[in-house]
Amino acid sequence: MPDRRYVITFGCPDRTGIIARVASFVADAGGWIVEAAYHADPDTGWFFTRQEIKADSLPFGLAELRARFAEVAASLSAESNWLVQDSGIRPRAVILVSREGHCLYDLLGRVASGELDVDVRAVIGNHDTLADITRAHGIPFHHVPFPPESKAEAFAEVREIVAAHDPDAVVLARFMQILPPEVCDEWAGRAINIHHSFLPSFAGARPYHQAYQRGVKLIGATCHYVTADLDAGPIIEQDVIRVDHGDSVADLVRKGRDIEKVTLARGLRWHLERRVLVHGNRTVVF
Amino acid sequence: MPDRRYVITFGCPDRTGIIARVASFVADAGGWIVEAAYHADPDTGWFFTRQEIKADSLPFGLAELRARFAEVAASLSAESNWLVQDSGIRPRAVILVSREGHCLYDLLGRVASGELDVDVRAVIGNHDTLADITRAHGIPFHHVPFPPESKAEAFAEVREIVAAHDPDAVVLARFMQILPPEVCDEWAGRAINIHHSFLPSFAGARPYHQAYQRGVKLIGATCHYVTADLDAGPIIEQDVIRVDHGDSVADLVRKGRDIEKVTLARGLRWHLERRVLVHGNRTVVF
Amino acid sequence: MPDRRYVITFGCPDRTGIIARVASFVADAGGWIVEAAYHADPDTGWFFTRQEIKADSLPFGLAELRARFAEVAASLSAESNWLVQDSGIRPRAVILVSREGHCLYDLLGRVASGELDVDVRAVIGNHDTLADITRAHGIPFHHVPFPPESKAEAFAEVREIVAAHDPDAVVLARFMQILPPEVCDEWAGRAINIHHSFLPSFAGARPYHQAYQRGVKLIGATCHYVTADLDAGPIIEQDVIRVDHGDSVADLVRKGRDIEKVTLARGLRWHLERRVLVHGNRTVVF
Amino acid sequence: MPDRRYVITFGCPDRTGIIARVASFVADAGGWIVEAAYHADPDTGWFFTRQEIKADSLPFGLAELRARFAEVAASLSAESNWLVQDSGIRPRAVILVSREGHCLYDLLGRVASGELDVDVRAVIGNHDTLADITRAHGIPFHHVPFPPESKAEAFAEVREIVAAHDPDAVVLARFMQILPPEVCDEWAGRAINIHHSFLPSFAGARPYHQAYQRGVKLIGATCHYVTADLDAGPIIEQDVIRVDHGDSVADLVRKGRDIEKVTLARGLRWHLERRVLVHGNRTVVF
Repeated sequence: MPDRRYVITFGCPDRTGIIARVASFVADAGGWIVEAAYHADPDTGWFFTRQEIKADSLPFGLAELRARFAEVAASLSAESNWLVQDSGIRPRAVILVSREGHCLYDLLGRVASGELDVDVRAVIGNHDTLADITRAHGIPFHHVPFPPESKAEAFAEVREIVAAHDPDAVVLARFMQILPPEVCDEWAGRAINIHHSFLPSFAGARPYHQAYQRGVKLIGATCHYVTADLDAGPIIEQDVIRVDHGDSVADLVRKGRDIEKVTLARGLRWHLERRVLVHGNRTVVF
Repeated sequence: MPDRRYVITFGCPDRTGIIARVASFVADAGGWIVEAAYHADPDTGWFFTRQEIKADSLPFGLAELRARFAEVAASLSAESNWLVQDSGIRPRAVILVSREGHCLYDLLGRVASGELDVDVRAVIGNHDTLADITRAHGIPFHHVPFPPESKAEAFAEVREIVAAHDPDAVVLARFMQILPPEVCDEWAGRAINIHHSFLPSFAGARPYHQAYQRGVKLIGATCHYVTADLDAGPIIEQDVIRVDHGDSVADLVRKGRDIEKVTLARGLRWHLERRVLVHGNRTVVF
Repeated sequence: MPDRRYVITFGCPDRTGIIARVASFVADAGGWIVEAAYHADPDTGWFFTRQEIKADSLPFGLAELRARFAEVAASLSAESNWLVQDSGIRPRAVILVSREGHCLYDLLGRVASGELDVDVRAVIGNHDTLADITRAHGIPFHHVPFPPESKAEAFAEVREIVAAHDPDAVVLARFMQILPPEVCDEWAGRAINIHHSFLPSFAGARPYHQAYQRGVKLIGATCHYVTADLDAGPIIEQDVIRVDHGDSVADLVRKGRDIEKVTLARGLRWHLERRVLVHGNRTVVF
Repeated sequence: MPDRRYVITFGCPDRTGIIARVASFVADAGGWIVEAAYHADPDTGWFFTRQEIKADSLPFGLAELRARFAEVAASLSAESNWLVQDSGIRPRAVILVSREGHCLYDLLGRVASGELDVDVRAVIGNHDTLADITRAHGIPFHHVPFPPESKAEAFAEVREIVAAHDPDAVVLARFMQILPPEVCDEWAGRAINIHHSFLPSFAGARPYHQAYQRGVKLIGATCHYVTADLDAGPIIEQDVIRVDHGDSVADLVRKGRDIEKVTLARGLRWHLERRVLVHGNRTVVF
């Protein structure tokens, strides 16, 4: 477990002196920068950074750091694009599932073994298949059925459960239900999906069947932020695995699972560590 | 779930007509070959094959198939190197663990979700850290401590538990204890280890520390059969993941886990499906 | 250089006894099978195989082998789907290029170093940028400009040059001109393209720009047979490479080249070794 | 071609305020930082950075920048560990080869197509196999035979040729001769080797034969700085490719070539762009 850190992230129009401004601000306060990353996008003229500062190297706390940094951000025209987070505050997540358990098993195993440091407040399933394993991990499971004729009511119930926990991440771990636009809005920047294809190939339903039909030689998985545009949100992480003519659709499904769960876990970790900055429909991953 | 199949595997000295002999034997009995693979090793002049036959395409059962095939094997000088297995008989496994849970969590998740079709008869741990999750899956957990002064007794107890289940696979899922030669002998061809390096690099203790010191740009994992020669048994499967200068030893440990668990699961699956034939210190994986 | 071999390939409706029929045919003639691969497609009920036989193990030559095998093929309803090739006859290729040289440099280097055993009869370019390097390798270069108003005439000239060499492969090594349907027909099963994306993502023009806009985390290349349907022909091979937010379009272009040239070289090798069987819009690669 | 840039690199003991010091120095001079990377090594307490500054954003030239930066470096105790380079000065390389041409073909192709911006001053071969292709690219080829009884004289001749060009990189593109210690010293930090294995596995002679014997499932290549300790210098880049039981040693050699040439080209590019900082026996690659 690393020691407690403050994480500063922001984006602003690029110009001379930004790094100097931020670094001097931290140095003047005695802050020890443990990790620093910068990215300047020449196409859009936009600048991004992420800084990790040892909390105990500063003579003041989070609130004061935020108050002081607000002035820096304002001077860089980053008013609405900055965050200062405290790694000592454990992030919260709610996980949404359906019947396929491989991503949930994987996430719960990572949390139980201390590898992924997140407080899973609840798992919500439109089937109850995964209730037992969830509860074996000491986590509440909510069964919210999604009958075709009353999906709106079901989504209302899910929103309410999620809202009660104010999570940093809503993880769609093979949830298989399309979020309505107002839910996408409500969870914007926090809803993370794992799609079982190498997007933009094979968006929508049954991607492994599509991949089989097309005869591709690699299959993939994509971890992305959910937006109202189906399977088209900013991509956080992707990975692929090799397949061949001997693989049936069932083989693709099985092999794909290993890529899905690892890709989702990486994307979620980066999101929780505030490593992912969204820029239009692209991401900067520090 | 695929339909029931008989799996024929053997190795014999290479010569003209082996494929014809085997294929004609199957065809004459009306057998439908679903999958067939061959390998001729030009260096050693040895031939290997694996055939999957639809069980219901044959007019007789497993015992009769074995009796008839024994003649074919004898005619090919494969007397002691052939097996005929029935996919309808569920294979059994015993898993050995220590404190690190990622491989065990992963295997249990695969079994629970029906992805890996194996009867996990018992989990044995030299610590009891993983007892609860094992029992949550309805599997007996045996805690066998390994105090330095009485390891021989501990191994005797483990051997007894294993022997009681006559498993097709003894899985060392980060067990961290070196098997004495007589245990290696007893479990020969059935004991599968996951080593947390890309062997032969970094055999022995603390491979991630070794990898960090050497400054490698990829780390790996190796699934292999256990032999009396430490970390030197026949390799079943290997995989790697990219790392860079920013990764601490702790990062290597974390990233490596994802490779370890996937590599072990693949190797175990292939072993259970009788896809792995050992040839000296190398494997043929069909 | 391996010794001379006959390569038998065919596809036919699946049924009991095909392997026995083919293997017995070879064994009865005294043939030594060096490499044998089979694939049964359960969806379409179709069977495929490729066999490599040592030429000097047979008491007769290519013509006689073909004559005899025709009967086997007929008995298996494979009349129009079989080939018997002689590895001793060096395959011929014509390469089509534009201005981008990385794939051509790579192919010429492989041929010059003896790695890729093919007789490159001619290189045709719609620009003359790559004339010198081609001629330095002792290969004729034909400059056929493609002015927008007379592409039909240009294609007629290209077809004529190609036809004069009757090549086993027409390699579109970043040719950048869309083949008209009648040319696709004429070169069917022989025209191999390298597309600079992981198809079906980013078909058509400027795939790296498309990939950049979408913010993907891996870019790829696809080697496929050319059909009248742009970038939609049967895929032979694909590969990918990791990119990140720091990569500009120019970086994607540069990194992509390494994948393009390796993927094209692999696909071309497999095609020339008769390892690729087309099945609808998919390929079996033995 | 990117515009002209100054590249500052250095390493120094880590402490508070380094980034602020460097960034303020650049900002105070009006410098526009295009790319900035930092790394703090917690184990050794050492700090590294690389900065790219637009040359035309500074009101002075390279000499003045160096003079001014010397003071910054001194204040950070980085006296002997800093460099300020001008991307407008084309780096020089000398390439050493033996008979195997794949790495040389690849490098020459990259240079000819403008992908790799380096002035290849000479190619030296202990055989003359690759003389023609080198000269076809307009580059002088020196044939320096290495008879067993007079290797010292041969190395003396090679050193002289190399010294005449004062290259930024001496590329051992499968040179196959072990450099004597005094040559390692003379070329320290500039001699780049490609070893045809995933080091530290299979150091020394015939790594593909070693890999075949061990039965590994992936083979690799390692680009590293040459030191007097054979195949043990700081690693710049590594990559691997999958192999299986069907691959002979000749197949490993062929498949390995694609990894060797790509890995060498990446490592060389990074070296020439001053992205590689050596830290003990490890590298920081920005």
